[in-house]
Amino acid sequence: MPKIVDHEARRQDVAEIAARLIASVGLEGTKVRDIARMAGCSTSVVSHYFASKHELLLSAYRQRMERIVTRIDFAELEGQPLSQVLSAALPIDELGHENWRIWLAFWGLATTDEFFRLEQRQRSREAVDLFQRAILATGIMEEGEHSYLVAQALLSAASGIATQAVYDPERWPPERQIKLLELHIAAHVGEAALFAPAGG
Amino acid sequence: MPKIVDHEARRQDVAEIAARLIASVGLEGTKVRDIARMAGCSTSVVSHYFASKHELLLSAYRQRMERIVTRIDFAELEGQPLSQVLSAALPIDELGHENWRIWLAFWGLATTDEFFRLEQRQRSREAVDLFQRAILATGIMEEGEHSYLVAQALLSAASGIATQAVYDPERWPPERQIKLLELHIAAHVGEAALFAPAGG
Repeated sequence: MPKIVDHEARRQDVAEIAARLIASVGLEGTKVRDIARMAGCSTSVVSHYFASKHELLLSAYRQRMERIVTRIDFAELEGQPLSQVLSAALPIDELGHENWRIWLAFWGLATTDEFFRLEQRQRSREAVDLFQRAILATGIMEEGEHSYLVAQALLSAASGIATQAVYDPERWPPERQIKLLELHIAAHVGEAALFAPAGG
Repeated sequence: MPKIVDHEARRQDVAEIAARLIASVGLEGTKVRDIARMAGCSTSVVSHYFASKHELLLSAYRQRMERIVTRIDFAELEGQPLSQVLSAALPIDELGHENWRIWLAFWGLATTDEFFRLEQRQRSREAVDLFQRAILATGIMEEGEHSYLVAQALLSAASGIATQAVYDPERWPPERQIKLLELHIAAHVGEAALFAPAGG
Protein backbone atom coordinates (compact mmCIF):
# COMPACT_ATOMS: atom_id res chain seq x y z
CA MET A 1 0.00 0.00 0.00
CA PRO A 2 2.49 2.65 -1.16
CA LYS A 3 -0.13 5.39 -0.99
CA ILE A 4 -0.64 4.98 2.75
CA VAL A 5 3.11 4.84 3.33
CA ASP A 6 3.48 8.05 1.32
CA HIS A 7 0.75 9.70 3.31
CA GLU A 8 2.43 8.79 6.61
CA ALA A 9 5.89 9.80 5.37
CA ARG A 10 4.57 13.12 4.11
CA ARG A 11 2.78 13.73 7.43
CA GLN A 12 6.05 13.11 9.25
CA ASP A 13 7.90 15.49 6.94
CA VAL A 14 5.42 18.25 7.64
CA ALA A 15 5.58 17.61 11.40
CA GLU A 16 9.39 17.73 11.21
CA ILE A 17 9.26 21.11 9.47
CA ALA A 18 6.91 22.32 12.20
CA ALA A 19 9.32 21.04 14.87
CA ARG A 20 12.23 22.97 13.35
CA LEU A 21 10.16 26.10 13.07
CA ILE A 22 9.00 25.87 16.72
CA ALA A 23 12.64 25.47 17.80
CA SER A 24 13.66 28.58 15.89
CA VAL A 25 10.76 31.01 16.33
CA GLY A 26 8.70 29.54 19.19
CA LEU A 27 5.10 28.34 19.30
CA GLU A 28 3.57 31.78 18.83
CA GLY A 29 5.70 32.51 15.79
CA THR A 30 4.96 29.18 14.12
CA LYS A 31 2.41 29.79 11.36
CA VAL A 32 0.78 27.14 9.18
CA ARG A 33 1.45 29.24 6.08
CA ASP A 34 5.20 29.21 6.81
CA ILE A 35 5.15 25.46 7.38
CA ALA A 36 3.34 25.03 4.06
CA ARG A 37 5.83 27.28 2.27
CA MET A 38 8.79 25.35 3.72
CA ALA A 39 7.13 22.06 2.76
CA GLY A 40 6.62 23.39 -0.76
CA CYS A 41 2.84 23.03 -0.66
CA SER A 42 -0.30 25.04 0.09
CA THR A 43 -1.93 25.45 3.49
CA SER A 44 -4.85 23.33 2.26
CA VAL A 45 -2.44 20.44 1.63
CA VAL A 46 -1.20 20.84 5.23
CA SER A 47 -4.85 20.77 6.37
CA HIS A 48 -5.22 17.51 4.45
CA TYR A 49 -2.60 15.91 6.73
CA PHE A 50 -3.56 17.62 9.98
CA ALA A 51 -7.12 18.43 11.02
CA SER A 52 -5.96 21.46 13.01
CA LYS A 53 -2.89 23.48 13.93
CA HIS A 54 -3.20 21.95 17.38
CA GLU A 55 -2.88 18.44 15.90
CA LEU A 56 0.11 19.52 13.81
CA LEU A 57 1.92 21.00 16.82
CA LEU A 58 1.15 17.90 18.87
CA SER A 59 2.61 15.67 16.14
CA ALA A 60 5.76 17.78 16.02
CA TYR A 61 6.13 17.48 19.78
CA ARG A 62 5.52 13.72 19.87
CA GLN A 63 7.76 13.02 16.90
CA ARG A 64 10.74 14.67 18.59
CA MET A 65 9.96 12.88 21.86
CA GLU A 66 9.94 9.55 20.05
CA ARG A 67 13.28 10.28 18.39
CA ILE A 68 14.87 10.62 21.82
CA VAL A 69 13.19 7.45 23.09
CA THR A 70 14.56 5.63 20.04
CA ARG A 71 18.03 7.04 20.74
CA ILE A 72 17.91 5.83 24.33
CA ASP A 73 16.59 2.39 23.35
CA PHE A 74 19.32 2.12 20.74
CA ALA A 75 22.11 3.10 23.16
CA GLU A 76 20.74 0.49 25.57
CA LEU A 77 20.65 -2.22 22.92
CA GLU A 78 24.26 -1.39 22.07
CA GLY A 79 25.16 -2.07 25.69
CA GLN A 80 26.48 1.42 26.37
CA PRO A 81 27.03 2.45 29.99
CA LEU A 82 24.12 4.13 31.81
CA SER A 83 25.59 7.64 31.59
CA GLN A 84 25.78 7.37 27.81
CA VAL A 85 22.30 5.91 27.54
CA LEU A 86 20.72 8.65 29.63
CA SER A 87 22.81 11.47 28.19
CA ALA A 88 20.94 10.89 24.93
CA ALA A 89 18.18 12.90 26.64
CA LEU A 90 20.45 15.92 27.21
CA PRO A 91 21.05 18.93 24.93
CA ILE A 92 24.60 17.83 24.11
CA ASP A 93 24.28 18.25 20.34
CA GLU A 94 22.27 20.26 17.82
CA LEU A 95 19.31 17.86 17.82
CA GLY A 96 19.23 17.78 21.62
CA HIS A 97 19.26 21.57 21.83
CA GLU A 98 16.48 21.82 19.26
CA ASN A 99 14.39 19.23 21.11
CA TRP A 100 14.67 21.02 24.42
CA ARG A 101 13.71 24.34 22.86
CA ILE A 102 10.63 22.63 21.45
CA TRP A 103 9.71 20.98 24.75
CA LEU A 104 10.23 24.17 26.71
CA ALA A 105 7.98 26.03 24.29
CA PHE A 106 5.29 23.40 24.98
CA TRP A 107 5.95 23.51 28.74
CA GLY A 108 5.08 27.21 28.63
CA LEU A 109 1.83 26.37 26.86
CA ALA A 110 1.12 23.43 29.20
CA THR A 111 0.97 25.73 32.23
CA THR A 112 -2.39 27.04 30.97
CA ASP A 113 -3.55 24.46 28.40
CA GLU A 114 -5.05 21.40 30.10
CA PHE A 115 -4.69 19.20 27.02
CA PHE A 116 -0.96 19.85 26.81
CA ARG A 117 -0.59 19.52 30.58
CA LEU A 118 -1.98 15.97 30.38
CA GLU A 119 0.24 15.22 27.39
CA GLN A 120 3.28 16.49 29.30
CA ARG A 121 2.28 14.50 32.39
CA GLN A 122 1.96 11.33 30.30
CA ARG A 123 5.33 11.82 28.58
CA SER A 124 7.02 12.53 31.84
CA ARG A 125 5.61 9.33 33.41
CA GLU A 126 6.77 7.34 30.38
CA ALA A 127 10.23 8.89 30.74
CA VAL A 128 10.47 7.65 34.35
CA ASP A 129 9.64 4.12 33.12
CA LEU A 130 12.25 4.44 30.37
CA PHE A 131 14.90 5.58 32.88
CA GLN A 132 13.95 2.76 35.26
CA ARG A 133 14.36 0.16 32.48
CA ALA A 134 17.83 1.56 31.71
CA ILE A 135 18.77 1.42 35.42
CA LEU A 136 17.54 -2.16 35.77
CA ALA A 137 19.47 -3.15 32.65
CA THR A 138 22.74 -2.43 34.49
CA GLY A 139 21.89 -5.33 36.80
CA ILE A 140 22.91 -3.20 39.80
CA MET A 141 19.40 -2.48 41.04
CA GLU A 142 16.27 -4.56 41.25
CA GLU A 143 12.75 -3.77 40.14
CA GLY A 144 10.70 -2.11 42.85
CA GLU A 145 9.91 1.11 44.67
CA HIS A 146 13.56 2.05 45.24
CA SER A 147 14.69 1.77 41.63
CA TYR A 148 11.56 3.69 40.61
CA LEU A 149 12.51 6.44 43.07
CA VAL A 150 16.05 6.47 41.64
CA ALA A 151 14.60 6.68 38.12
CA GLN A 152 12.59 9.72 39.21
CA ALA A 153 15.74 11.18 40.76
CA LEU A 154 17.80 10.69 37.59
CA LEU A 155 15.05 12.01 35.34
CA SER A 156 14.70 15.08 37.57
CA ALA A 157 18.45 15.54 37.42
CA ALA A 158 18.67 15.16 33.63
CA SER A 159 15.72 17.46 33.11
CA GLY A 160 17.16 20.08 35.48
CA ILE A 161 20.57 19.91 33.78
CA ALA A 162 18.91 20.28 30.37
CA THR A 163 16.82 23.30 31.30
CA GLN A 164 19.90 25.09 32.62
CA ALA A 165 22.02 24.12 29.62
CA VAL A 166 19.46 25.43 27.12
CA TYR A 167 19.68 28.96 28.54
CA ASP A 168 23.33 28.83 29.55
CA PRO A 169 25.28 26.82 26.96
CA GLU A 170 28.31 28.98 27.87
CA ARG A 171 28.54 27.39 31.33
CA TRP A 172 27.01 24.05 30.37
CA PRO A 173 29.01 22.56 27.49
CA PRO A 174 28.32 18.84 26.80
CA GLU A 175 31.24 17.71 29.03
CA ARG A 176 29.79 19.60 32.00
CA GLN A 177 26.31 18.17 31.49
CA ILE A 178 27.68 14.64 31.28
CA LYS A 179 29.92 15.20 34.32
CA LEU A 180 26.87 16.26 36.36
CA LEU A 181 24.81 13.34 35.09
CA GLU A 182 27.65 10.95 36.05
CA LEU A 183 27.81 12.54 39.50
CA HIS A 184 24.08 11.79 39.89
CA ILE A 185 24.43 8.24 38.60
CA ALA A 186 27.39 7.52 40.91
CA ALA A 187 25.50 9.02 43.88
CA HIS A 188 22.20 7.21 43.29
CA VAL A 189 23.08 3.97 41.52
CA GLY A 190 26.74 3.58 42.45
CA GLU A 191 30.16 4.10 40.85
CA ALA A 192 29.89 0.72 39.15
CA ALA A 193 27.02 2.03 36.99
CA LEU A 194 29.46 4.35 35.24
CA PHE A 195 31.18 1.36 33.65
CA ALA A 196 28.62 -1.45 33.55
CA PRO A 197 26.69 -1.72 30.28
CA ALA A 198 23.06 -0.66 30.70
CA GLY A 199 21.74 -3.32 28.38
CA GLY A 200 22.61 -5.60 25.51
CA MET B 1 9.85 60.72 51.23
CA PRO B 2 6.42 59.10 51.33
CA LYS B 3 5.77 59.84 47.66
CA ILE B 4 8.70 57.71 46.47
CA VAL B 5 7.74 54.91 48.85
CA ASP B 6 4.19 55.02 47.52
CA HIS B 7 5.42 54.94 43.97
CA GLU B 8 7.57 51.86 44.66
CA ALA B 9 4.81 50.13 46.64
CA ARG B 10 2.31 50.81 43.86
CA ARG B 11 4.74 49.51 41.25
CA GLN B 12 5.12 46.31 43.25
CA ASP B 13 1.35 45.93 43.55
CA VAL B 14 0.93 46.21 39.80
CA ALA B 15 3.76 43.72 39.18
CA GLU B 16 2.13 41.33 41.66
CA ILE B 17 -1.18 41.55 39.79
CA ALA B 18 0.70 40.82 36.57
CA ALA B 19 2.40 37.81 38.20
CA ARG B 20 -0.95 36.33 39.26
CA LEU B 21 -2.40 36.90 35.83
CA ILE B 22 0.57 35.22 34.10
CA ALA B 23 0.17 32.22 36.41
CA SER B 24 -3.48 31.88 35.56
CA VAL B 25 -3.69 32.72 31.84
CA GLY B 26 -0.10 32.56 30.61
CA LEU B 27 2.08 35.23 29.03
CA GLU B 28 0.09 35.47 25.82
CA GLY B 29 -3.17 35.93 27.67
CA THR B 30 -1.80 38.62 29.98
CA LYS B 31 -3.07 42.01 28.74
CA VAL B 32 -2.13 45.40 30.17
CA ARG B 33 -5.80 46.44 30.13
CA ASP B 34 -6.71 43.48 32.39
CA ILE B 35 -3.86 44.30 34.76
CA ALA B 36 -5.08 47.91 34.90
CA ARG B 37 -8.66 46.80 35.55
CA MET B 38 -7.54 44.46 38.36
CA ALA B 39 -5.39 47.25 39.84
CA GLY B 40 -8.38 49.59 39.69
CA CYS B 41 -6.68 52.11 37.44
CA SER B 42 -6.34 53.04 33.76
CA THR B 43 -3.76 51.64 31.33
CA SER B 44 -2.09 55.07 31.27
CA VAL B 45 -1.50 54.80 35.02
CA VAL B 46 0.13 51.40 34.43
CA SER B 47 2.28 53.04 31.73
CA HIS B 48 3.31 55.61 34.31
CA TYR B 49 4.86 52.83 36.42
CA PHE B 50 6.24 50.69 33.61
CA ALA B 51 7.72 52.06 30.39
CA SER B 52 6.60 48.97 28.45
CA LYS B 53 4.73 45.69 28.79
CA HIS B 54 8.13 44.01 28.56
CA GLU B 55 9.33 45.92 31.64
CA LEU B 56 6.14 45.05 33.52
CA LEU B 57 6.47 41.33 32.74
CA LEU B 58 10.12 41.41 33.73
CA SER B 59 9.26 43.04 37.08
CA ALA B 60 6.61 40.39 37.74
CA TYR B 61 9.15 37.66 37.01
CA ARG B 62 11.89 39.19 39.17
CA GLN B 63 9.57 39.98 42.05
CA ARG B 64 8.49 36.34 42.35
CA MET B 65 12.09 35.18 42.03
CA GLU B 66 13.09 37.50 44.87
CA ARG B 67 10.29 36.21 47.09
CA ILE B 68 11.73 32.71 46.84
CA VAL B 69 15.25 33.95 47.51
CA THR B 70 13.94 35.71 50.62
CA ARG B 71 12.18 32.52 51.71
CA ILE B 72 15.37 30.52 51.33
CA ASP B 73 17.48 33.14 53.14
CA PHE B 74 14.93 33.22 55.94
CA ALA B 75 14.83 29.43 56.34
CA GLU B 76 18.64 29.50 56.47
CA LEU B 77 18.71 32.23 59.12
CA GLU B 78 16.25 30.19 61.18
CA GLY B 79 18.75 27.32 61.12
CA GLN B 80 16.41 24.90 59.35
CA PRO B 81 17.92 21.71 57.89
CA LEU B 82 19.10 21.84 54.25
CA SER B 83 16.11 19.91 52.88
CA GLN B 84 13.72 22.46 54.38
CA VAL B 85 15.80 25.39 53.17
CA LEU B 86 15.97 24.12 49.59
CA SER B 87 12.39 22.85 49.48
CA ALA B 88 11.32 26.51 49.67
CA ALA B 89 12.15 26.50 45.95
CA LEU B 90 9.70 23.66 45.18
CA PRO B 91 6.02 23.89 44.21
CA ILE B 92 4.87 22.49 47.57
CA ASP B 93 2.24 25.15 48.25
CA GLU B 94 0.02 27.55 46.34
CA LEU B 95 2.70 30.24 46.03
CA GLY B 96 5.28 27.71 44.85
CA HIS B 97 2.91 26.35 42.19
CA GLU B 98 2.11 29.85 41.00
CA ASN B 99 5.80 30.77 40.84
CA TRP B 100 6.68 27.75 38.76
CA ARG B 101 3.84 28.40 36.33
CA ILE B 102 5.19 31.93 35.93
CA TRP B 103 8.78 30.80 35.41
CA LEU B 104 7.79 28.11 32.97
CA ALA B 105 5.81 30.65 30.97
CA PHE B 106 8.99 32.76 30.78
CA TRP B 107 11.13 29.72 29.97
CA GLY B 108 8.98 29.20 26.89
CA LEU B 109 9.58 32.81 25.88
CA ALA B 110 13.30 32.59 26.70
CA THR B 111 13.84 29.88 24.08
CA THR B 112 13.43 32.54 21.37
CA ASP B 113 13.84 35.87 23.18
CA GLU B 114 17.53 36.66 23.74
CA PHE B 115 16.81 39.23 26.46
CA PHE B 116 14.86 36.73 28.54
CA ARG B 117 17.42 34.00 27.84
CA LEU B 118 20.13 36.17 29.40
CA GLU B 119 17.82 37.01 32.32
CA GLN B 120 17.11 33.30 32.86
CA ARG B 121 20.82 32.46 32.61
CA GLN B 122 21.63 35.11 35.21
CA ARG B 123 18.92 33.93 37.63
CA SER B 124 19.99 30.36 37.23
CA ARG B 125 23.63 31.23 38.02
CA GLU B 126 22.52 33.17 41.09
CA ALA B 127 20.45 30.18 42.19
CA VAL B 128 23.54 27.94 42.07
CA ASP B 129 25.36 30.42 44.33
CA LEU B 130 22.36 30.50 46.67
CA PHE B 131 22.29 26.70 46.86
CA GLN B 132 26.04 26.57 47.44
CA ARG B 133 25.76 29.02 50.35
CA ALA B 134 23.05 26.84 51.91
CA ILE B 135 25.22 23.74 51.47
CA LEU B 136 28.27 25.43 53.01
CA ALA B 137 26.15 26.62 55.94
CA THR B 138 25.67 22.99 57.02
CA GLY B 139 29.41 22.88 57.72
CA ILE B 140 29.59 19.47 56.00
CA MET B 141 31.25 20.68 52.81
CA GLU B 142 33.93 23.25 52.10
CA GLU B 143 33.99 26.07 49.61
CA GLY B 144 35.44 25.01 46.29
CA GLU B 145 34.82 23.27 42.99
CA HIS B 146 33.22 20.19 44.55
CA SER B 147 30.61 22.02 46.63
CA TYR B 148 29.84 24.15 43.56
CA LEU B 149 29.30 20.98 41.53
CA VAL B 150 27.03 19.64 44.28
CA ALA B 151 25.11 22.93 44.27
CA GLN B 152 24.60 22.54 40.52
CA ALA B 153 23.49 18.95 41.12
CA LEU B 154 20.96 19.93 43.80
CA LEU B 155 19.63 22.86 41.77
CA SER B 156 19.22 20.58 38.75
CA ALA B 157 17.41 18.08 40.96
CA ALA B 158 15.08 20.65 42.53
CA SER B 159 14.34 22.22 39.18
CA GLY B 160 13.64 18.82 37.59
CA ILE B 161 11.37 17.82 40.48
CA ALA B 162 9.50 21.12 40.20
CA THR B 163 8.91 20.91 36.46
CA GLN B 164 7.46 17.42 36.83
CA ALA B 165 5.33 18.39 39.84
CA VAL B 166 3.79 21.38 38.04
CA TYR B 167 2.33 19.15 35.32
CA ASP B 168 1.72 16.10 37.49
CA PRO B 169 0.60 17.23 40.96
CA GLU B 170 -1.33 13.94 41.18
CA ARG B 171 1.88 11.91 41.34
CA TRP B 172 4.01 14.64 42.93
CA PRO B 173 2.36 15.78 46.17
CA PRO B 174 4.59 17.89 48.48
CA GLU B 175 5.73 14.79 50.49
CA ARG B 176 6.97 13.11 47.31
CA GLN B 177 8.86 16.18 46.16
CA ILE B 178 10.54 16.55 49.55
CA LYS B 179 11.33 12.83 49.68
CA LEU B 180 13.11 13.08 46.32
CA LEU B 181 14.96 16.21 47.37
CA GLU B 182 16.10 14.46 50.57
CA LEU B 183 17.26 11.50 48.50
CA HIS B 184 19.39 13.90 46.44
CA ILE B 185 20.75 15.67 49.53
CA ALA B 186 21.64 12.40 51.24
CA ALA B 187 23.31 11.11 48.06
CA HIS B 188 25.33 14.25 47.31
CA VAL B 189 25.99 15.91 50.66
CA GLY B 190 25.48 12.99 53.04
CA GLU B 191 22.81 11.69 55.42
CA ALA B 192 24.01 14.12 58.09
CA ALA B 193 22.80 17.05 55.98
CA LEU B 194 19.22 15.92 56.54
CA PHE B 195 19.50 16.83 60.22
CA ALA B 196 22.21 19.48 60.50
CA PRO B 197 20.96 23.06 60.41
CA ALA B 198 21.89 24.83 57.17
CA GLY B 199 22.60 28.12 58.86
CA GLY B 200 21.89 30.22 61.91
